[in-house]
Amino acid sequence: MKKIAFVGLGLIGGSLAMALKGFEDCQRLGVVRRQATADYALSHDVVDAVTLDPAEALPQADVTVLCMDPRQIVDYMKRNRDLFQPGSLVVDVCGIKTAIMKGAEALPETVDFIGCHPMAGTEFSGIEHAFPTMFRDAHFIMTPRATSTPEHIALVRRMAKHLGCKDIITTTPEKHDSIIAYTSQLMHVVAAAVCDDVDLFQCRGFEGGSFRDVTRVAALDVDMWTELFTMNAPALSEVLRRMEDNLHAYRVAVENRDVERIHAKLTYSSERKRRMNLPGPGQFSLDEMEISRDSLEQ
Amino acid sequence: MKKIAFVGLGLIGGSLAMALKGFEDCQRLGVVRRQATADYALSHDVVDAVTLDPAEALPQADVTVLCMDPRQIVDYMKRNRDLFQPGSLVVDVCGIKTAIMKGAEALPETVDFIGCHPMAGTEFSGIEHAFPTMFRDAHFIMTPRATSTPEHIALVRRMAKHLGCKDIITTTPEKHDSIIAYTSQLMHVVAAAVCDDVDLFQCRGFEGGSFRDVTRVAALDVDMWTELFTMNAPALSEVLRRMEDNLHAYRVAVENRDVERIHAKLTYSSERKRRMNLPGPGQFSLDEMEISRDSLEQ
Repeated sequence: MKKIAFVGLGLIGGSLAMALKGFEDCQRLGVVRRQATADYALSHDVVDAVTLDPAEALPQADVTVLCMDPRQIVDYMKRNRDLFQPGSLVVDVCGIKTAIMKGAEALPETVDFIGCHPMAGTEFSGIEHAFPTMFRDAHFIMTPRATSTPEHIALVRRMAKHLGCKDIITTTPEKHDSIIAYTSQLMHVVAAAVCDDVDLFQCRGFEGGSFRDVTRVAALDVDMWTELFTMNAPALSEVLRRMEDNLHAYRVAVENRDVERIHAKLTYSSERKRRMNLPGPGQFSLDEMEISRDSLEQ
Repeated sequence: MKKIAFVGLGLIGGSLAMALKGFEDCQRLGVVRRQATADYALSHDVVDAVTLDPAEALPQADVTVLCMDPRQIVDYMKRNRDLFQPGSLVVDVCGIKTAIMKGAEALPETVDFIGCHPMAGTEFSGIEHAFPTMFRDAHFIMTPRATSTPEHIALVRRMAKHLGCKDIITTTPEKHDSIIAYTSQLMHVVAAAVCDDVDLFQCRGFEGGSFRDVTRVAALDVDMWTELFTMNAPALSEVLRRMEDNLHAYRVAVENRDVERIHAKLTYSSERKRRMNLPGPGQFSLDEMEISRDSLEQ
């Protein structure tokens, strides 16, 4: 029987552990810092066993899933490097990859590492908000090392499939961080910036679905997102600059009441959005993007 | 038996007509431009009767609901002013109110007008996307004339309740347009601007829930939103300027990798969002805002 250790049972770690119940008859071990979390995890069948002591779990784990904030993950691998079972696989599930892959160089050579990013979550934190269907139909991104074994890569793919993910994308850490600055980090900055508006509390009773949707993720985990933004600052700054430019172009058209320009711009933007909504494979070029995209159904 | 005429059976008009089935035993009349819409409306029980000729419906309607784009509404009231039944009520349901209330001055003195804005919708257009539960738990905003009769105001309130709206807010057209520039129009510009990014089509496979939520409304009705933006240009320009400033402040903090500043800003924004999420009445001052807020449950 394989053993999977989940280090950190918060929103993501808890949801992963719940979702991986029944995966290839594995035993799920939880490693947490607080007794209250341990008690909750056991009483809610989040894991099969739980400990506060990494030395009790890591040496027997075939797979260790690190589910903490980015800097904690880097520190944890360094501090516990000699506890991981030789030949075992360590993965993380956080929102940046370059700094994590670099941090994983602290692991012994006998321990494999694959960066993982299941693209799901909610605006809540903590094990009490975890739920096993979180990853259904989500994209699963992985950044293996050049030396990662085919067996470990195949294992991660089976885990992603068990989670219910829609597809798996294999890419480089740098490409991941560059694109995620746009698709994820920018959305969080936009949501936060909308909530900074001086009129926020005057608008109660005037919100529709679009306001709720755009601002939803503003209720974020401040510590984690501060790390994510800081550790990906160059890519995020660049994306923010482009967003400012694109917003500004709309403002100029509106300020000038330039009906033709507003119409042309909305035609352009809405057609791009509709093209994005089309089903089918990604529109990027595989060669150009250094990305291989594989359907789980193949 | 009262008769309600719905002029325009698109996404909103169709949904309203479906939702008002069974309202106080009213007969629902549809007034449309295309035979195909008329056929669809009858065969899908959107209305009880339908005509292409306003002169067949308006003179017998006790309430006329104008469900077209803003400029069409203004033109329609002017062109058909003598068709509305004396003593009847005309309402609209579009996203701006100042220009509409002004346009309604073209109606005869014997015809009452109340501006209405049920805060719901989807990114789709057309009767085939209409559904009767669209307005459930939505805010319903109304801008009556100073001369609107208590009976007509009470009738609109009962209609809003039948639609399933969460609450009704009575305000002035100017206040409506100023707040809606923020809660609705800005969200649409933000969604469109995100889709203008050069990386849009490179990001397939990297989108999470936040990306889908923020960009959802970018697939908008170009003609209608061009009118809404143009007719509310001063308020929207001002809101866009503030959004640019708030985004820019985030960019500066990120560019400088100013961890403390990023943390402080995210703390501020996320606390504001959580405060907005709290249940309970609006946090604005009634006197200051010239707004009265009434629970339908009272």
